[in-house]
Amino acid sequence: TLASPALAQEYPKITWKMTSSFPKSLDTIYGGAEDIAAHVSDATNGNFTIQVYEAGEIVPAAQAADAVSAGTVDAAHTCSYYFADKDPTYAIGTTLPFGLNARLTNAWFYQGNGNKLMNEFYATQGMLGLPAGNTGAQMGGWFRKEINTLDDLKGLKMRIAGLAGKVMQKIGVAPLQDIAANDVYGALDKGTVDAVEWVGPYDDLKLGLQKIAKFYYYPGWWEGGALVHAFFNLEKWSGLPKNYQAILTGACAFANTNMLAKYDVKNPQALKDIVQQGVTLRPFSQEIMEACFQAANGLYADLSKSNDSFKRIYADQVAYKKDAYLWMQLSEYTFDTFMMIQQRAGKL
Amino acid sequence: TLASPALAQEYPKITWKMTSSFPKSLDTIYGGAEDIAAHVSDATNGNFTIQVYEAGEIVPAAQAADAVSAGTVDAAHTCSYYFADKDPTYAIGTTLPFGLNARLTNAWFYQGNGNKLMNEFYATQGMLGLPAGNTGAQMGGWFRKEINTLDDLKGLKMRIAGLAGKVMQKIGVAPLQDIAANDVYGALDKGTVDAVEWVGPYDDLKLGLQKIAKFYYYPGWWEGGALVHAFFNLEKWSGLPKNYQAILTGACAFANTNMLAKYDVKNPQALKDIVQQGVTLRPFSQEIMEACFQAANGLYADLSKSNDSFKRIYADQVAYKKDAYLWMQLSEYTFDTFMMIQQRAGKL
Repeated sequence: TLASPALAQEYPKITWKMTSSFPKSLDTIYGGAEDIAAHVSDATNGNFTIQVYEAGEIVPAAQAADAVSAGTVDAAHTCSYYFADKDPTYAIGTTLPFGLNARLTNAWFYQGNGNKLMNEFYATQGMLGLPAGNTGAQMGGWFRKEINTLDDLKGLKMRIAGLAGKVMQKIGVAPLQDIAANDVYGALDKGTVDAVEWVGPYDDLKLGLQKIAKFYYYPGWWEGGALVHAFFNLEKWSGLPKNYQAILTGACAFANTNMLAKYDVKNPQALKDIVQQGVTLRPFSQEIMEACFQAANGLYADLSKSNDSFKRIYADQVAYKKDAYLWMQLSEYTFDTFMMIQQRAGKL
Repeated sequence: TLASPALAQEYPKITWKMTSSFPKSLDTIYGGAEDIAAHVSDATNGNFTIQVYEAGEIVPAAQAADAVSAGTVDAAHTCSYYFADKDPTYAIGTTLPFGLNARLTNAWFYQGNGNKLMNEFYATQGMLGLPAGNTGAQMGGWFRKEINTLDDLKGLKMRIAGLAGKVMQKIGVAPLQDIAANDVYGALDKGTVDAVEWVGPYDDLKLGLQKIAKFYYYPGWWEGGALVHAFFNLEKWSGLPKNYQAILTGACAFANTNMLAKYDVKNPQALKDIVQQGVTLRPFSQEIMEACFQAANGLYADLSKSNDSFKRIYADQVAYKKDAYLWMQLSEYTFDTFMMIQQRAGKL
């Protein structure tokens, strides 16, 4: 009987609250929090349970980090870049314009310095963060008119999140950042904005954007691979038994891969539906891509001057980025290219 | 005190043996099994431990599946396609020539029918399988002379694994499949083979292949994203408490992502080292790629005639593949392309 008190200590009954920054209706991105909760419960026979709340149910989407820091909730499932106004370092946690794609984001977080450096920063905010989802490269958004030149973008009002809004501003766009999922359709419909970026085909189709805007642009150069984080109140995380920390780590790794898999399975059919509804797919022109790339680099230079943690973490990511895209253009890129050519030729 | 016997049942002391099909020296691919063992131990406070053995220590690499089926070991960390001679359906579990890349492999396994269908097959072999690692797109291998045309490949003796050997045979190559990691260098050095494919820069550099063969080709069209499996003896898996099954699932998900991250962080520097040692990088010519693609499709048509489980699972994967590469060529591909152009221009 000596063993039983030890066992009870190792597997205590704990119930946590996790606020999501997403509505339940977006099963892909909201589903990540549900994956985490299900895994943690399964792995502990229900001793450790996490109750998931959708955005606004107990905490508004944009206050998720504050609520975790303050311990109002134990955890959040959210995008770090939603909090870039508090400190631009938050933006690096999700993705930067012209940053890493989903796969290279994982590489930097799991085996590069990403997770270590970002957690040094999150610790200053009273939090610990773990990768817990990714959308892949997002689409470049919905435009009511065709956009070919930089002039076409001048004065355009666009709903766009994170630092991307600041980049867009540098080339003359008027960005609006804080339009939540449920208000995006209305804003575009009423003309509060002329263009909207949200995620990609599957999520966008649910918002009904294809009914109002007939041009759907790519790529979403500001979100080449948007990481979704699980944030934990640092004190509560530190108070967990080590085995519960390990189980949460496994849960987040599973949620991370599973979310991207969901997008990659659901997006193709959604894309076909969108095209069937009369939407035109358009790549951003080279002129626009290059101007945005330069504007982004200018922004990073400015931020590095004024913010030490941004400077240090950004420099580490860029060092990896140079190497990563060197390697990816050999086998990965030539393999994918060949397969896409066969796809277009109807030979797969 | 009523709770304690229940707790002891839920967290029983179990020790399992897992045989790896890889040598310890390949920390990337061998490391996947170590990741699984570490996570399972951490998540159960050492109550569930997995002892990992390198290839040949208790089971030869090529007999890992048989040992799991027979229950000689509880688990293996291996590539399903090593066992394609038993049944070609095994090949689909890892990757097929001109199959899915690493990311789309995850999509098919986690959210498509991949895991479900492959486990219906593995159940007939007395096993359950979980994705537990990926190498990404491999390189096309080391050649002692330049290969430009199909004629250059005629009669060439090549170490090449899985169904790829059968594809190569169709275009005149003499494939040798069963040369293990430790014998690859010697076989190329002595001229037993004229060419060798192994994995990619980091692993290949360890084998020293750059000292003998001066042409390093890409892409490894036969391994656009090679999945590494954890196999579990089906009876032993079914006998585990549900929470241990969940913990193993989390462990494998972590190992899956972490292995690819290791490759993506370690390969760039290894590639630079290889080039500095005087190796020439070469893409396979369009002529060779297309002939191999046709030969592969011919092989799949043959196998589908003679093997029902291959036919059924292959058809499901192809249906997904058509959709997947349709979607991937929009945002993902154009984003990656733009970033690679900036990389080559030295602008990242």
